[in-house]
Amino acid sequence: MRIGIAGIAGRMGRLLVEEVRAAGAEPAGGTLRPGSGKAPPEGVAVLPDAAALFAAADVVIDFTHAANAEAHAAAAVAAGKALVLGSSGLSAAQEAAVADAARSVPVVYAANFAPGVNLVLALAERMAAALPAESYDAEIVEMHHRQKVDAPAGTAIALGRAVAAGRGTTLEAAGVESGRDGHTGPRGTGTIGFAALRGGQVVGEHTLIFAAATEHIAITHRSFDRRAYATGAVRAALWLRGRGPGMYAMRDVLGMD
Amino acid sequence: MRIGIAGIAGRMGRLLVEEVRAAGAEPAGGTLRPGSGKAPPEGVAVLPDAAALFAAADVVIDFTHAANAEAHAAAAVAAGKALVLGSSGLSAAQEAAVADAARSVPVVYAANFAPGVNLVLALAERMAAALPAESYDAEIVEMHHRQKVDAPAGTAIALGRAVAAGRGTTLEAAGVESGRDGHTGPRGTGTIGFAALRGGQVVGEHTLIFAAATEHIAITHRSFDRRAYATGAVRAALWLRGRGPGMYAMRDVLGMD
Amino acid sequence: MRIGIAGIAGRMGRLLVEEVRAAGAEPAGGTLRPGSGKAPPEGVAVLPDAAALFAAADVVIDFTHAANAEAHAAAAVAAGKALVLGSSGLSAAQEAAVADAARSVPVVYAANFAPGVNLVLALAERMAAALPAESYDAEIVEMHHRQKVDAPAGTAIALGRAVAAGRGTTLEAAGVESGRDGHTGPRGTGTIGFAALRGGQVVGEHTLIFAAATEHIAITHRSFDRRAYATGAVRAALWLRGRGPGMYAMRDVLGMD
Amino acid sequence: MRIGIAGIAGRMGRLLVEEVRAAGAEPAGGTLRPGSGKAPPEGVAVLPDAAALFAAADVVIDFTHAANAEAHAAAAVAAGKALVLGSSGLSAAQEAAVADAARSVPVVYAANFAPGVNLVLALAERMAAALPAESYDAEIVEMHHRQKVDAPAGTAIALGRAVAAGRGTTLEAAGVESGRDGHTGPRGTGTIGFAALRGGQVVGEHTLIFAAATEHIAITHRSFDRRAYATGAVRAALWLRGRGPGMYAMRDVLGMD
Repeated sequence: MRIGIAGIAGRMGRLLVEEVRAAGAEPAGGTLRPGSGKAPPEGVAVLPDAAALFAAADVVIDFTHAANAEAHAAAAVAAGKALVLGSSGLSAAQEAAVADAARSVPVVYAANFAPGVNLVLALAERMAAALPAESYDAEIVEMHHRQKVDAPAGTAIALGRAVAAGRGTTLEAAGVESGRDGHTGPRGTGTIGFAALRGGQVVGEHTLIFAAATEHIAITHRSFDRRAYATGAVRAALWLRGRGPGMYAMRDVLGMD
Repeated sequence: MRIGIAGIAGRMGRLLVEEVRAAGAEPAGGTLRPGSGKAPPEGVAVLPDAAALFAAADVVIDFTHAANAEAHAAAAVAAGKALVLGSSGLSAAQEAAVADAARSVPVVYAANFAPGVNLVLALAERMAAALPAESYDAEIVEMHHRQKVDAPAGTAIALGRAVAAGRGTTLEAAGVESGRDGHTGPRGTGTIGFAALRGGQVVGEHTLIFAAATEHIAITHRSFDRRAYATGAVRAALWLRGRGPGMYAMRDVLGMD
Repeated sequence: MRIGIAGIAGRMGRLLVEEVRAAGAEPAGGTLRPGSGKAPPEGVAVLPDAAALFAAADVVIDFTHAANAEAHAAAAVAAGKALVLGSSGLSAAQEAAVADAARSVPVVYAANFAPGVNLVLALAERMAAALPAESYDAEIVEMHHRQKVDAPAGTAIALGRAVAAGRGTTLEAAGVESGRDGHTGPRGTGTIGFAALRGGQVVGEHTLIFAAATEHIAITHRSFDRRAYATGAVRAALWLRGRGPGMYAMRDVLGMD
Repeated sequence: MRIGIAGIAGRMGRLLVEEVRAAGAEPAGGTLRPGSGKAPPEGVAVLPDAAALFAAADVVIDFTHAANAEAHAAAAVAAGKALVLGSSGLSAAQEAAVADAARSVPVVYAANFAPGVNLVLALAERMAAALPAESYDAEIVEMHHRQKVDAPAGTAIALGRAVAAGRGTTLEAAGVESGRDGHTGPRGTGTIGFAALRGGQVVGEHTLIFAAATEHIAITHRSFDRRAYATGAVRAALWLRGRGPGMYAMRDVLGMD
């Protein structure tokens, strides 16, 4: 399994190179962001463009930028190679181009590649399906570093969507109680609560609590290192060996169907 | 759905009556333990024996004593009624008698009826299946009241068995690290760790942690009240409506197949 | 030490009787709320009024109502007996009357008698004094039952005031970040954050976190039972033996000066 | 305040240089371990020996090795300069030499310089003094990385000693329950419990729980980075400005007397 890496000199690119090697493989080469001026990691072949990258690899991991998604999807199709896509903030048109490519080649596309986060999202849906909303109040609390400028965090919202899906509804229809402060009135039945803590340099902690009168069930994810995203992406790349065309999610990679 | 209750004057019997009513149903009657001298809860018909109890009910909940399991299983078969069995400590012969009855009538039999505990056991197996044992160390920590005389708790061991099953092995084969104290050497890869806390009047808290270098995933169950067992048993009883014969587990009731 | 109890037939009065007995003492008698129609706990002498109550006791515990505070303070002075006062919502005039009484007799007056809560408040102040506000972000998260109608809880706010006091400022001057939701901007240095969870029947959980880049320190209080307030009040009553006149706080009782 | 650093090219030496600069100061120079072959951090003057190091500085921080403690203590006395000593595993003779130096110059000597750990140790003692051992069961749970070979961790034992001290006894006299496994019998009153978790790459987490029937109070310390030890040592160095001779502990530095 030859794994190519887009944007090999950036922070994420370097982590990907390390994780490919930690998995016992050798990077098949990588591209540099034009004009970045950064040196590539030692021992990794620098390739001139996406076509060369896909030619040299069986699968390419791309965490660079949404603007590259369409070109990489096209290059994957042209070369008949697999794609692991972790760029965030894709437009609808960019997502459509990726989906289109997935009809010809295998693609793993995810907002968050940390294995544990994806596992927790899948479990959250099952928990919500098993625990009646009338009796089990769902509360989500997240903590992130002090620089974070918005609340709740995207993964917290994804957790809320998973709970709503497990209950056969949507977050919007279930109702959200976020940022309780002042006279709130009693908690609504079936609503989903959010609370955001900020402090220090927390990479990311998320807890989902189902609180009933006689028992609580909670699931917690703690990220210590952005490396987890690289670990998950390499795992996805290796999982793609022998897969047919299709758009896969991390929960497919993790066997959480 | 007429729900009968064995041993209606004991602590668990009273909770079951309350939970049947809380579920919008009315108890179909109950039996008293011979010689207990306790008064039945107000408004519940006292029935003279198991035959009368099963005749009056669609399903009978029995949390009394392992010694009654065979007679109740036989009475369920004779009356063609369902059974929810929560007695603990059944012998192999008693378990065989219950399994035999389950060929004729529907039976839910579980060691722990708390919905959350069963959900957590099912999730533990899935977590273990998704998270490689080489990278994710599994640790189980439980806390119970100061009177508890053994460690680890039965539910903690059940959690360990679930983790082992998810990894395609057994607790014995995976290896247990319980009660670390002194020179332990480094943690074994793939082993399952146990730690037991004792204090106050904790009904039961269990946490399963999967600890990798870059992330931790944990699931926690906290019991506040033995009532949770009654809640789960009544839920099982209602779930049995319209089921065919068979031996069902709480994870079937909860839809965690 | 003869301990009298005001309002002996109410929920709190009954708990106080039980806790007095659990401490190896016998209640010196109690008063009933006029017109309540409730029966007193078995074996406790019913006394006709505050004068009789203070005459029969060395110390009186009063958790009844703010409206009784002035009369009880006056009766304590008249009888030369001690007072443990746990009524909430006293007006400034009522507080002044209690303070006035404390010049003649010993008084313990507190908003929350749970020993652990008072200990945590005292520790919070010390933690804040020891950990520089520039580096240690203070976050307070509380969880209460679903019926609670306001946020953050009073004890959470008291925790915030304790942190501010430890930093030589006030909560108002330090700045509050409560109920984060939406575009919040980065966390302010030195501000105190609050988050409120609601669910199930949680009596009260409070956690104060100091989060720095390299370490977190957290202190948590969990209440399982309102009985803790009675336990603390009886402890205060016993502690008053031999004390001179003065207004004491629970932190005096606990030796947290 | 000129701060010198012994062993400037090692992992801890480099962190100390960074933390001195983060505190707005400039390292006054440092020594290299003979024969280490490592390059010193950029911009820091390399000094030939302990005498030169103490001559150049107002205070020297030494985290090198117990074998250097006596020589550094003597050099501090000869130069009339302060010493911050974080080496571990000193023999009784080495400790005596340090104590001897502290009669002439100010010395801060601690087993753990993380501000939060020292704060938690001081608070643990106060908590134990305030919460009666008959009612509040003390349990200590720690988690460390999978390579750790002994249990419980030294800081956990220090927490246990602090609890015992707060109760006016010793850990040995109070009784230890460590590594519960099998038939333990009910928890002893007043004993101190220990549990050790191992997994992933946890730098260090310690929780001390006081569990009573109606409330729990817990204090938790989480270390994310060994840098905390450097941060604490620099803080101690700055605190020494203007102090007279004496042996100081981190709790003095933190104002937790």
